[in-house]
Amino acid sequence: MKPSGEDREAQAGDPWEECFEAAVQLALRAGQIVRKALSEEKRVSTKTSTADLVTETDQVVEDLILSELHQRFPSHRFIAEEAVAAGAKCVLTPNPTWIVDPIDGTCNFVHRFPTVAVSIGFAVDQELEFGVIHDCTEERLYTGRRGRGAFCNGQRLHVSVETELSRALVLTEIGPRRDPATLKLFLSNMERLLRARAHGVRVIGSSTLALCHLASGAADAYYQFGLHCWDLAAATVIIREAGGVVIDTSGGPLDLMSCRVVAAGTREVAMLVAQALQTINYGRDDER
Amino acid sequence: MKPSGEDREAQAGDPWEECFEAAVQLALRAGQIVRKALSEEKRVSTKTSTADLVTETDQVVEDLILSELHQRFPSHRFIAEEAVAAGAKCVLTPNPTWIVDPIDGTCNFVHRFPTVAVSIGFAVDQELEFGVIHDCTEERLYTGRRGRGAFCNGQRLHVSVETELSRALVLTEIGPRRDPATLKLFLSNMERLLRARAHGVRVIGSSTLALCHLASGAADAYYQFGLHCWDLAAATVIIREAGGVVIDTSGGPLDLMSCRVVAAGTREVAMLVAQALQTINYGRDDER
Repeated sequence: MKPSGEDREAQAGDPWEECFEAAVQLALRAGQIVRKALSEEKRVSTKTSTADLVTETDQVVEDLILSELHQRFPSHRFIAEEAVAAGAKCVLTPNPTWIVDPIDGTCNFVHRFPTVAVSIGFAVDQELEFGVIHDCTEERLYTGRRGRGAFCNGQRLHVSVETELSRALVLTEIGPRRDPATLKLFLSNMERLLRARAHGVRVIGSSTLALCHLASGAADAYYQFGLHCWDLAAATVIIREAGGVVIDTSGGPLDLMSCRVVAAGTREVAMLVAQALQTINYGRDDER
Repeated sequence: MKPSGEDREAQAGDPWEECFEAAVQLALRAGQIVRKALSEEKRVSTKTSTADLVTETDQVVEDLILSELHQRFPSHRFIAEEAVAAGAKCVLTPNPTWIVDPIDGTCNFVHRFPTVAVSIGFAVDQELEFGVIHDCTEERLYTGRRGRGAFCNGQRLHVSVETELSRALVLTEIGPRRDPATLKLFLSNMERLLRARAHGVRVIGSSTLALCHLASGAADAYYQFGLHCWDLAAATVIIREAGGVVIDTSGGPLDLMSCRVVAAGTREVAMLVAQALQTINYGRDDER
C-alpha cells in the first residue's frame, strides 16, 4: 500500500518525515500480527470490565511499536494504551510524543468481529503532527499530516459537506462503563440524535475506524464519551486534514485528554450534535 | 470468487443447482453495479421515513435480478423489496420462490458507508433451500444450501459456540420506525442486553451482513424487530448451515413473515436473548 498521494517535493522539508515513515511501516507490520492472531485461539484477561478486554496480542503489538520507536527516537516520549493501563503517566508535554493504540476495537478482536485497527499519532509542542491508522482486516491504511491532507491507500479523503442533522448518519460507541446511570445517559443521547431525525446511528466497536469513516465522508458525525487520547490522536489529524472538525462535546475546542469528542464533516453538524448531548463524565486521561 | 467448497458429486443430485448458480452469478453482477454506483452521485427518494431510503440503484439491481430470474425460471414466484413497496403481494406459497433484497443497508449505501449487501434467498414448499449474500464493498460472497453447509469465499463457516450472554457480542438494528414509543422500546431492549453484561452491542446498518457476521462466528447473537423476509431469508439458511439457530423473538420457531427474529450460535444464547426482549410490533409482511 502506498501511504499517500502527496507531492514528494513537499515532503522534503518535513522534519518529521522519518517519524511518519516509521509509523506507516509499524502500522503495516502490526496489522499483519493482528490478522495472524485473528486466525488463532486467544487467551483473554479482563481490564476494567468485561466490555474492555485485553489480549496478549494487544501487548505484543504495543511492545513491538514502542520498542522500535524508542530505539530509533530515544528522546521521544510515549503514551500508549497498555502502558497507561499498567500505571504509566498519560501527560502530553511539548516533547515529540507518540500516542499509540495497539488494537482499537479489542472487544471486536476478541470476538473476531472484523473491525479492528492500529492507531499511531504523533504530537510536537502539544500539537498533532500526523496520524496513521491501519484497518487491519480490510487492509486500509489511513494517513493524515498537518497541512498535507489525508489519504486512504493513496486516495485523498474528503469529509461530508452535510450541514443538517436530519440528513446525517451518526456514529458513536457505547464506552467502557456499563453501570446503570452511565448506560441511561448513553441511551438517552442516542435517543436525542434519533429524535432529531438523524438518518441512522451506527455502533461498530472501534472509535478509531468510526472516525476514519467520518474522514472518508461515509458518515456525517461522530460523538463519544469515554474514549481515550490514543483512540483519538491519529484520527483527529486525519479528519482535520480531510476538511472536518473535531471539537469538545461542549462545543468548545477539543481537549485531547478530556475523554470526550464530537467530530463532523461541517461545523454546523458538529454544533448540532454537541447541543443535543448530555454529558457523561469519564474524568480525564491526564488525571488518573 | 469461488461460491463454496462443496463436493462436486454431492451437487450432482441437487434439483436446484441451476438456480443456485444463477443466484451466485446475479449476486456478483449486482455487487459490481453497487460498487460502481458508490463512486457516483446519487439521487435519493424517501420511502416510509428518512431512515428508510430508496435509491435508483436499488431499483436497477432489483430489476436486473428479477428480470433475469423470470426469464430463466418463468414458473417461479418472487418476493422482492422494491416490488412489495410498489404494492406487490408478499406471500410465500409452496411454489419455488425467490426472496430478494437488492440492496440491504440502503441508508449506508446512500451515505457511502461501506456495509452494503445483495441478498437472494430461495424457498420451495415453504422451506428455505439456499441463500446467497454478497457483501459488495468487501467482496465477500456468503452462501448456504440446505444440508450442504455454509461458506464465505469458499471457506466453511461455523457459528460461535458461546452459551453465556455475559460473554456474547450481540448485533441488532434500529429498525425503520422512529416514533417515540418504538424508539423507547428499541433502546430499552439494548439496555436489557447491556445490563445482562453482553460484551457489546453493535449496530452496523445491514441486517443481512450482521447475520453473516453471526454465521461466521464473529458475533454470538442477533435480534431485530422491524426487518423483512427479504432481509432474513438468505441469511437464515446460511446461519443454520453454519450450525446456528434462528428463532422467533418469543423463543418459538421462526416465522419468516413476522418481521422479528433472534439468531445465535447456540440455542442457549438465543433463548437468553429472546427472554430479555420486549416485543416491538411491526405487523406481518404477508398482511400489508
